[in-house]
Amino acid sequence: MESWVCPAPLRNSPNIVMGHGGGGAMSAELIEHLFLPAFGPAADAAMGDSAVLEVGNVRLAFSTDSFVVKPLTFPGGTIGDLAVNGTVNDLAMAGARPMVLSTAFILEEGTSLDELAHVAQAVGTAALAAGVKLVTGDTKVVDAGHGDGVYINTAGIGLIDERADIRPQRATEGDVVIVSGDIGVHGVAVMSCREGLEFGTTVASDTAPLHGLVAAMIDTGADIHVLRDPTRGGVAATLNEIAKTARVGISLDERAFPIPAEVRDACGLLGLDPLYVANEGKLLAFVPPADADRVLAAMHAHPLGGHATVIGRCVAEHPGMVSAKTALGGTRVVDLPIGEQLPRIC
Amino acid sequence: MESWVCPAPLRNSPNIVMGHGGGGAMSAELIEHLFLPAFGPAADAAMGDSAVLEVGNVRLAFSTDSFVVKPLTFPGGTIGDLAVNGTVNDLAMAGARPMVLSTAFILEEGTSLDELAHVAQAVGTAALAAGVKLVTGDTKVVDAGHGDGVYINTAGIGLIDERADIRPQRATEGDVVIVSGDIGVHGVAVMSCREGLEFGTTVASDTAPLHGLVAAMIDTGADIHVLRDPTRGGVAATLNEIAKTARVGISLDERAFPIPAEVRDACGLLGLDPLYVANEGKLLAFVPPADADRVLAAMHAHPLGGHATVIGRCVAEHPGMVSAKTALGGTRVVDLPIGEQLPRIC
Repeated sequence: MESWVCPAPLRNSPNIVMGHGGGGAMSAELIEHLFLPAFGPAADAAMGDSAVLEVGNVRLAFSTDSFVVKPLTFPGGTIGDLAVNGTVNDLAMAGARPMVLSTAFILEEGTSLDELAHVAQAVGTAALAAGVKLVTGDTKVVDAGHGDGVYINTAGIGLIDERADIRPQRATEGDVVIVSGDIGVHGVAVMSCREGLEFGTTVASDTAPLHGLVAAMIDTGADIHVLRDPTRGGVAATLNEIAKTARVGISLDERAFPIPAEVRDACGLLGLDPLYVANEGKLLAFVPPADADRVLAAMHAHPLGGHATVIGRCVAEHPGMVSAKTALGGTRVVDLPIGEQLPRIC
Repeated sequence: MESWVCPAPLRNSPNIVMGHGGGGAMSAELIEHLFLPAFGPAADAAMGDSAVLEVGNVRLAFSTDSFVVKPLTFPGGTIGDLAVNGTVNDLAMAGARPMVLSTAFILEEGTSLDELAHVAQAVGTAALAAGVKLVTGDTKVVDAGHGDGVYINTAGIGLIDERADIRPQRATEGDVVIVSGDIGVHGVAVMSCREGLEFGTTVASDTAPLHGLVAAMIDTGADIHVLRDPTRGGVAATLNEIAKTARVGISLDERAFPIPAEVRDACGLLGLDPLYVANEGKLLAFVPPADADRVLAAMHAHPLGGHATVIGRCVAEHPGMVSAKTALGGTRVVDLPIGEQLPRIC
């Protein structure tokens, strides 16, 4: 094995730390400075949440995610529906109708068949609800102490709407930034039952498939520039990525953030900022100002977009950065998180 | 959580045991009696190693596999090239030219960046060699003691050759069964350096991408009925699955099995049958007798098929079963293995 020299030093440690999985700056560093150089010319330069393939006479979206959420069952969901909805949503964010999923399980020796069946039923139910077929799969077993019950990978293929050209690069000055509903809900639901952190809350995960909402938005005829689901790292991480990719500034209005009181209370208790907490059934949309009203109207008419609201705009100032006007009238920088506030949230 | 009642009792244990990951009877039971009933109507009835999708005017193959091989580096390969070649080969076995792969890493906290880079370089090198692009990915981190360095999932999409109709159901009486080369090599290579089992051998893993060999076979114009790569559970498990799926008997000639002396010796030492040992760069082909000679000639002309040889035929007797004529002139049943001889071999 030849010795590997990191092209740019990775932060702090010669080893993997939990923060490398947080969807923040450390994750981005790992991709940019380790994976992409190591993959070399085989890596597609645009390697992102989903890929677009032109095949025959159609455009397909292709995406994958592994799920390691802990615990396996939490208020409002399980790792099973999370694994289906997560990949369904990555496809939907490219303007695609999800068609098929693969499911690959890594099971820990000693996991109860009962618990596995519960998770697998959740996979089936979520797939049926999302209208995707489970067409291929794989099962591996690792010895006790080398897993954590059940890890699931899903990959999926979707058919991109021919009217859609939706990608982070299209965010541009003037775009209105819409969030489809309450934020911070999934992360708080999972943490509320995490060993050592149990606290009472009525918050249930928002895990849901978003392709129906996206189809309703596309059907308005609006020129949707960007769609993204703010999962790991929350709204803050997602908007920072878009700002950096499109080299545009994003200015938010803190007073407009739809944060339920229970989420605000729980975040206060845990010392978290809801803007950095994971969501699993929400999307962020960037649309031209002229299209914003009809997109919002279509979202409000959909069960998953009832609380959709404008939270900011793209601006010419501070390209690559996200700022927020505070409730007191000041302005703060919304940084990309470094590591992760909440490990193993999805 | 409603209590789950297993439609048919799973063998021996209410919990997952290593054998459920072995690719034998216990793996099949888990799929048939747990996953498929739990997935319900969302599961495609044909849920197999790869799926065929008709999209626009083309047919695509779609496949996934997770890799948990231990150790991460072994004679002749690493988990990285295994992860690329494994999915490339699943696509190739459907007669497809692999186009794109996704890569999803589950990293254990504390894994050295050096080791991860070594694995990622192997992914990139193998992808380049196989002519596939790495277009999308994911990275999760789990706490120390809940992983084993690096687990990798790959999923892939390939374009099926329009001349090909290759699937297990097509195995039929009279078909000649060809293996593309020496068997048992990968499993022995991995075991030779497995902690607690180290033994000296010069055997290196046969991990390799097989789509070029498959293309050469299709180019002969032969009507190839079935292709499969005999990975977990080896040639025995793969042939049993095909016999069961096609409801055909398979009769092998033990004297024809291409088993290198080193593999035979190592298997003797470990008490293993080479027919049940995993291969990662070999294929089994079922072809009509009239096409066998030209397919064999094409294989012999390809660097990965030089040792291709006929090992048996499909017969009308014992449908769903595999038998072998022994060196002494007797006949034995080649059973589907129950669990696994060699855990975490891929």
